[in-house]
Amino acid sequence: MELFEAIAARHSYRGKYQPEPVPREDLQRIMEAGLAAPSGCNKQTTSLIAVDDPALLSEIYGIMDSFCSTAPAVICVTTKRIVAYKDGWGNDRCYGVQDYSAAIENMLLAITALGYASCWIEGHVTDADEQGKRIAELLQVPEDEALICVLPVGRPAEEMKLVRKKPFDMRARFA
Amino acid sequence: MELFEAIAARHSYRGKYQPEPVPREDLQRIMEAGLAAPSGCNKQTTSLIAVDDPALLSEIYGIMDSFCSTAPAVICVTTKRIVAYKDGWGNDRCYGVQDYSAAIENMLLAITALGYASCWIEGHVTDADEQGKRIAELLQVPEDEALICVLPVGRPAEEMKLVRKKPFDMRARFA
Repeated sequence: MELFEAIAARHSYRGKYQPEPVPREDLQRIMEAGLAAPSGCNKQTTSLIAVDDPALLSEIYGIMDSFCSTAPAVICVTTKRIVAYKDGWGNDRCYGVQDYSAAIENMLLAITALGYASCWIEGHVTDADEQGKRIAELLQVPEDEALICVLPVGRPAEEMKLVRKKPFDMRARFA
Repeated sequence: MELFEAIAARHSYRGKYQPEPVPREDLQRIMEAGLAAPSGCNKQTTSLIAVDDPALLSEIYGIMDSFCSTAPAVICVTTKRIVAYKDGWGNDRCYGVQDYSAAIENMLLAITALGYASCWIEGHVTDADEQGKRIAELLQVPEDEALICVLPVGRPAEEMKLVRKKPFDMRARFA
């Protein structure tokens, strides 16, 4: 799919998924797209875990209590705190959030281009009930990494509901 | 350009730029790609300002002291602190960093697909010397928005230097 087409076609999907498994080749391509994103000072703070085993998925969905629990696969995103550099005032500068967000956006576009649907599920994962921590334990994520996002992957079984966005002129201008 | 090709071709460019102006139509398409990115609870916290006026650019480059100072245009990214929701423990959840990072990644891909080069310049803009604040004043950015990133846009005049990335297996796996 052409880039601008993929950008326009990407939408957050909160409906049910078709049950057919996602070929691992596709999950691999999606993860490769994520890892190709830039990272502050090339620190590559983001790591990815694809889950397509039904028993493991069902444990994850048990923890998440989420609308995505029919997706036949998920990609879990973890981040490691690595100092990119110290600025001239001695402050540690870390870009982990920026790094994983760029990786997630690449994956959402790849998911769209391959005909799947997804949704950036971060809030419910990182809220104070620590769902992400419990999923991380289940997936044996190293202790110095935090699991901060779960991306469902699968063919949508329902129609995509679109959100309204502000018009261009309310958010962008030429100086 | 095809999506996966754009993702693979995107690289941070720190060389000199060709002086030819970037058509506003292209800057508009790049900004539209940025605004099409998702945002937490659709709060649309990110705004964009394209600058192609040589006098204004030269003022910005005077503030930035940056390697990008030959680019014939820049897109400045601003973010507004908006609470997406309160979690069940009363904590404010804000996704501004995630929102602008997804928007920046979309723009970097659009810049690549249109044959331009760029680099995500955030560190030098948001470090404690407050370059971003001074650029925001110059561009009359509202006080409740922070200018956090400058993306140069132009045709590269030099070869792209690529960074080395860790192999797939060091950053991704199937559970």
